Amino acid sequence: MIGKLTKDVVVADKQAINELYNVGYYGRPKGDILELTLIEAAFLLYRNKIDVELDGEILDFADFFKIASMRQQYFELKYIVYKDLRERGLYVQPSVTDFRIYPRGGHPGKTAAKSFVYVRTERIPMPLRDLMKSLNAASNVRKQMILAIVDEESDITFYEVKSVNPKGEMDEIYPNITAEATLLEERVIIWDSEASSTLFENGFYGKMLDENRLQLSLVESRYLLENGIIEIHDRESDAVLDIEEFSKRASAIEPEFFSKYKVYEDLRNRGLVPKTGFKFGTHFRLYSQIRSLAKMPHSENLVHTISPDHEFALPVMSRAIRVANSVRKHMVFAVQSEKGVDYVDIGRIKM
Amino acid sequence: MIGKLTKDVVVADKQAINELYNVGYYGRPKGDILELTLIEAAFLLYRNKIDVELDGEILDFADFFKIASMRQQYFELKYIVYKDLRERGLYVQPSVTDFRIYPRGGHPGKTAAKSFVYVRTERIPMPLRDLMKSLNAASNVRKQMILAIVDEESDITFYEVKSVNPKGEMDEIYPNITAEATLLEERVIIWDSEASSTLFENGFYGKMLDENRLQLSLVESRYLLENGIIEIHDRESDAVLDIEEFSKRASAIEPEFFSKYKVYEDLRNRGLVPKTGFKFGTHFRLYSQIRSLAKMPHSENLVHTISPDHEFALPVMSRAIRVANSVRKHMVFAVQSEKGVDYVDIGRIKM
Repeated sequence: MIGKLTKDVVVADKQAINELYNVGYYGRPKGDILELTLIEAAFLLYRNKIDVELDGEILDFADFFKIASMRQQYFELKYIVYKDLRERGLYVQPSVTDFRIYPRGGHPGKTAAKSFVYVRTERIPMPLRDLMKSLNAASNVRKQMILAIVDEESDITFYEVKSVNPKGEMDEIYPNITAEATLLEERVIIWDSEASSTLFENGFYGKMLDENRLQLSLVESRYLLENGIIEIHDRESDAVLDIEEFSKRASAIEPEFFSKYKVYEDLRNRGLVPKTGFKFGTHFRLYSQIRSLAKMPHSENLVHTISPDHEFALPVMSRAIRVANSVRKHMVFAVQSEKGVDYVDIGRIKM
Repeated sequence: MIGKLTKDVVVADKQAINELYNVGYYGRPKGDILELTLIEAAFLLYRNKIDVELDGEILDFADFFKIASMRQQYFELKYIVYKDLRERGLYVQPSVTDFRIYPRGGHPGKTAAKSFVYVRTERIPMPLRDLMKSLNAASNVRKQMILAIVDEESDITFYEVKSVNPKGEMDEIYPNITAEATLLEERVIIWDSEASSTLFENGFYGKMLDENRLQLSLVESRYLLENGIIEIHDRESDAVLDIEEFSKRASAIEPEFFSKYKVYEDLRNRGLVPKTGFKFGTHFRLYSQIRSLAKMPHSENLVHTISPDHEFALPVMSRAIRVANSVRKHMVFAVQSEKGVDYVDIGRIKM
C-alpha cells in the first residue's frame, strides 16, 4: 500500500481505509481516501504496513523521518510518545492537545476518547498558562488530562493533571485567646506558657521552643494576628506591630511571604492544617484533621505555591512529584487566581 | 550563680568553672573566669543553671533572648541547633564554622572534636563558595562537616557534606566502530542496525528507538564524536558536523550543554556510565559497571552539575537529597574547577 506525502500529511487510497482504519484506527477517512499524520505514517512505515512516496520516489524510514522532523515541530518527540501509546495497545488520534486516546476496549466511532495527551520535552520549560489552557480544554469536554514528558534519553514519564478542591475537617481553627508575642530576627515567639500550649495543642500552630514557649512561622503569625489571637511586639522597642507593618517585615525576611500567606490563609479557611513542607522541598504539607498531637495522621498532600506566570522547569517538577509520590502524598500546586486560589494536582500514572 | 552580660559574652566566676565547665563543658575557662557565648548562656538560663545580670538587673529568659537576638546575627537559629545538639547529649563548643562537636564518650580536654557544624536557615540561599570554604576548613583539620538547616517551623535537618572521588570499573568505554548518525530536532539517531546494537549493548549509550535504530542524547553524541565513534550529519543538507558545529547546535537546544558535557566526559573517563537522571530531577544517574543490559545493577549515585557560583536554594537542595536518599542513592553535586571536576556528596544524617 502506498501513501503520498504532501506537505504535512500522507494520503492513501480506499484500500487503506479497510486495512488501516477499519482494523487499527490509523488515520481519518475523508470520503474515498485515508489521511494520515506524519507521525502515523512513520509508525506504519516502521511496521512495514505502508510505503511512502514523495515526487514519485519511495522513501526509506530514515529519509522519511528526517523530512518529517523538518516539516513538523517536535516530530521526534511526538513520534516517541505515539509509538509508546500504540505499543501499549491504545488507539490514538490527533487532538487539540497533541493526542487523544481511547479507553481500553473502546475505539474511534464506538466510544468517546478518554484522555487528552499533551507532549513536552524535559528541556523546554512549560508555562503554567499553557498547562492550564490544556487542562481546561480537557476538562470542558470531560477528558482526563495527561502530560507526557520525554527526557533526553527518550524515556517517557506520564502524569495526570487535575483540578482539586482540598477540604479539611477542622472545625475550630483557632483557640479563643489573646497572646503576647515578639518578632525576633526571623521568627515569632510566644513567651507565655499557657498561651503557648493552647495554641500548639488546640490549633496546631507553631512548634515549642521548649516546655514553655512557642515559636510561630511568619505565615502562622500573620494568620493569628489577622484573627486577633496574638499581638506581636517589636523586639527592641516593644511597640505593637499592626498587620501592615508585620507583613512588611515578614516579606523582607521571606520574599515569598505574600503569595505563601494567601495560600496558607485559604487552606486554613478550608478547615485544613498546613505545616511546613521544607523536608519535602515544598511550602506546605497538609493535614485534613488533627485531633491530638500524639496521634498525628498521615499528611496526604504537599502544596507548593506558584505564581500565575510560573514556568515549570520540568526536571524540577519531576523531582517534586517524585518526592511526594514516594511518601504516598499528592503534589498539589497552588495558584492565585481572581476568584481565590486554584489547586492543581500533578501525579505520575502508569498508562 | 550569676553571669554578667557584656557585649556578646556572659562572664561568670570561678565557681562556674567547677559547676558548668568541669561538669558539662559549658563555656571556656580563662584564668579565674568562665566565658560563655550568648547561646550557651541562654541555654543555661533556660535550664535554670545561671542568672544573667545586665547593668545590675537580673534578666528573665524572654528579655535575655530578645537582647541576644539583637546582639548576634542568627542567634535564634543557632540557639535552636545548639539546644538540639546538647539535648542529644553532645558536647558543643564554638568554632570557625558555627559549632564543633565532640564524639560520644569524648569531651573538650580529653578528645579532639569530631565534627564542624554549619548552621543555615532554609530561607537564605547558600552560596556554593561558602559551603566549599566550610568544607575545606573542616577537611584541613580532618573533621566531619555537618550542615544544620533550620526550617521555618524550626525543625532541623542535618546533612553530612563530603568530597568524593567517583570511580567506575568499565574498562572498555566505547566499541571500536564508526557509525553514521543524524542530528534531528533535539536528538541524534543512528540508522544502522548493527552499529546501533553494538553501541547500545557494549557501550550502554543511548536508547533504542525501535529494533534497528539508536537514539543518543546530546552529551553522549558529543562524547562519541570526540572519540571518533560516530559521524554526525545535518538532517537537511546531510553535511558532516564537526565537534564545534555540533556543540554549537547542541547548546542552542540545551542551554546547559557545555557544563553537562564536561561532567559527562569526566565521569565516562573515570570508568563510569552516566545515564539521564531526569526521573529523579537530576542530570545523571551513575552505574559503576554494567555487564549486560539484562542485568542492570542498582545505580548508587545521582549527579547534578552546578556552576562554581551556584547558590543553593535550600528547599530545592532538601528535595534533591530526599529524592536520592529515598531510592538508596547518594546525591552528588559536580562542580567544574580549575583542575577538572570536583564532586561533593550531601546526604541526610541522624545525629
